[in-house]
Amino acid sequence: LQRTCSSLKSFAVGFVTKIWMFLVKSWNIGVDDPKKFVHCVKVGLALSVVSLFYYMRPLYDGVGGNAMWAVMTVVVALEYTVGATLCKCINRAMATAVAGSLGIGIHWVASQTGEKFEPIIIGTSVFIFAAATTFSRFIPAVKARFDYGALIFILTFSLVSVSGYRVDKLWTLAHQRVSTIAIGTSLCVLVSMLFCPVWAGYQLHQQTIRNLENLANSLKGHVAKYFTNEEASTIHGEINKKIQGYKCVLNSKQSEESMVNFAKWEPAHGKFSFGYPWKQYLKIGAAARKCAYCIDNINSCINSEMQAPEYLKKHIEEECMRLSSYSSEVLKELAITIKTMKTSSEIELLVGDMNFAVQELHNALKALPSHFTQPQSPPQTVDDHPDADPEGLKRPAYASIIEILPLAALVTLLTETVVRTEE
Amino acid sequence: LQRTCSSLKSFAVGFVTKIWMFLVKSWNIGVDDPKKFVHCVKVGLALSVVSLFYYMRPLYDGVGGNAMWAVMTVVVALEYTVGATLCKCINRAMATAVAGSLGIGIHWVASQTGEKFEPIIIGTSVFIFAAATTFSRFIPAVKARFDYGALIFILTFSLVSVSGYRVDKLWTLAHQRVSTIAIGTSLCVLVSMLFCPVWAGYQLHQQTIRNLENLANSLKGHVAKYFTNEEASTIHGEINKKIQGYKCVLNSKQSEESMVNFAKWEPAHGKFSFGYPWKQYLKIGAAARKCAYCIDNINSCINSEMQAPEYLKKHIEEECMRLSSYSSEVLKELAITIKTMKTSSEIELLVGDMNFAVQELHNALKALPSHFTQPQSPPQTVDDHPDADPEGLKRPAYASIIEILPLAALVTLLTETVVRTEE
Repeated sequence: LQRTCSSLKSFAVGFVTKIWMFLVKSWNIGVDDPKKFVHCVKVGLALSVVSLFYYMRPLYDGVGGNAMWAVMTVVVALEYTVGATLCKCINRAMATAVAGSLGIGIHWVASQTGEKFEPIIIGTSVFIFAAATTFSRFIPAVKARFDYGALIFILTFSLVSVSGYRVDKLWTLAHQRVSTIAIGTSLCVLVSMLFCPVWAGYQLHQQTIRNLENLANSLKGHVAKYFTNEEASTIHGEINKKIQGYKCVLNSKQSEESMVNFAKWEPAHGKFSFGYPWKQYLKIGAAARKCAYCIDNINSCINSEMQAPEYLKKHIEEECMRLSSYSSEVLKELAITIKTMKTSSEIELLVGDMNFAVQELHNALKALPSHFTQPQSPPQTVDDHPDADPEGLKRPAYASIIEILPLAALVTLLTETVVRTEE
Repeated sequence: LQRTCSSLKSFAVGFVTKIWMFLVKSWNIGVDDPKKFVHCVKVGLALSVVSLFYYMRPLYDGVGGNAMWAVMTVVVALEYTVGATLCKCINRAMATAVAGSLGIGIHWVASQTGEKFEPIIIGTSVFIFAAATTFSRFIPAVKARFDYGALIFILTFSLVSVSGYRVDKLWTLAHQRVSTIAIGTSLCVLVSMLFCPVWAGYQLHQQTIRNLENLANSLKGHVAKYFTNEEASTIHGEINKKIQGYKCVLNSKQSEESMVNFAKWEPAHGKFSFGYPWKQYLKIGAAARKCAYCIDNINSCINSEMQAPEYLKKHIEEECMRLSSYSSEVLKELAITIKTMKTSSEIELLVGDMNFAVQELHNALKALPSHFTQPQSPPQTVDDHPDADPEGLKRPAYASIIEILPLAALVTLLTETVVRTEE
């Protein structure tokens, strides 16, 4: 009995510890980004405000029992960013209006044909419109912008046209639905825009800057790690985290696309005017991902079992370090350029430096064969063949760095387009 | 006047053509995958069936005016795959039940405190629960599985607890809401499972196979293109499309994760038993993405301005072609292994061949320096230095191929785990 008791106790302790760990971890998500706490408060606030419709007699009488549509709109449409909220609200309002009027129209046509055919006509139209709208949601162009609108269209259309069969005052129903949704959407838009707004565009802007900085740190860290192989394994925590920074860039495509989509719905705010070229961020993102793929390849070179001998590494260590530091300088400068939205005069200098460093690395690589046949080479290189092999295996790291350069140049170009359209 | 007329006419023609093109393109989406058409029919059918609640007096009287909750459930919860539908339905049903009972409980507590405090207690509880649940949606573990459930929880809880202030028969309201949602969800589940079901697990399985085949074709095509540079530019259409196949693998992470999530909700179907190790597909997907990154690097080597001289290419062409063909054979064999879910006896042979091809390529690279200093080398190689440089620039393509190998081996291991857990 005592044993069961103690095992039960340890189980309970383990369970409580697990839950506690989960809560602490969740809490840290909010501490890292206090905007998330603010968003929760906003949702609670908006819901409390919309509940007033139930507590105040005159408001309640105005919209009837349909006050719940307003509550529903707030719950469903109040999203984290302003862009997402606007996108959902506009979609919801437009779809409700269109579907509502179409539903009333169909109902009127059906009621003219007599009681016998009414259910058939309404049922068929619901079937056709629902199937067609569902199909439109498979089209990428529609899905990206109007997915939610299509859903609400089906919903409202079927509700209105089907309710018409039972509810006598269909016009009142449609009117109440539209007005409650209007109340809900305007409340959502007000709360999300006036009370600590989180702009999708600004988030995208910040994420792009952060990604470029991560790439810069990662690139520098990887090359440094390659040349100080032994010590690197003892480095922990902070630095290792910096080196792995490129990983969050690898799969950034979908989140960037959705943010660009939301950013397009947002009005002018802060430094971002209306019609800001958000699509350029997609291009920058694509270039950044290309860089990240290169760094990923460098990473697998580092972790590969086939390593170059030390003396070969020594020979080009300096050039490689310089090249990687210039490349990461360029990336950092690009991040600053995007941050300040001004063409940097330094960037061309840095790109020049970088290209010069590439040339130096080339020269160093060219010098390799002759270097080893000369007397000042280390004793291991008497036999030339074994060197040729690891050299080939070791190259990828440099080659990948070299590959990054045209990409960095591409990023430069892209940023400048952004900056120019901005000025 | 005639000019305006003709310009208006051309505008109208252009507009109609554009719409026509859009419709044709959309139609082809469905033709490529007829399951999408079937899904649209399913949605229309389910909506028509649920509309019966309005047309039949006894059914309508049974659930009252709340029949619309059933319509709503069908519109919102009927998704393309069975897994997604089940996930939404279970989330919706559970969240409604929990939130409904909690709402009634809170309402009972509030009603005991007297009319003055009632709105305050209800308002505060709505605020607290809404904020807390909204916060839980930021936690990745909750978001992946219960995002929709959290939304419905907020919705139902605020509806029930707030309605209590006006509606006298709160119990009837809650009861009707639960029963209509039960009707809606069971209809959704039946329609999606019995009528041409689309299983998320099967889709994931097919996509993984397709991705591996795409990688195999892409790898082979890229290496072939590298060695037949000039002719490649004249190749169009089909082959070029094959070569670009790796691109759809690059950004497959999110779709794979969501499909794995949905697949976990699905019951046993076809070859997939309950508790099938879906997570292994994520690992295979990660390895496939690594391969795709390598191919992307090979691609930028091909498009790079810095190209190796022809005679150097010739020297290792044979070995590279052999290596790439063995590698793509291994990938294809992996695809077949996954397809048939049986360990292939050939795969180890093929991996052996592939490793042998790697060794041969190493040997060819080793032989390079001595080759050029011997008399049978072509006349351009008299001066040794310029060769060393392009050699370095040309290497990445081979190096990347070599890098693919450990990855392919990783994939092998992973597939075997899958197959073994399956047998």
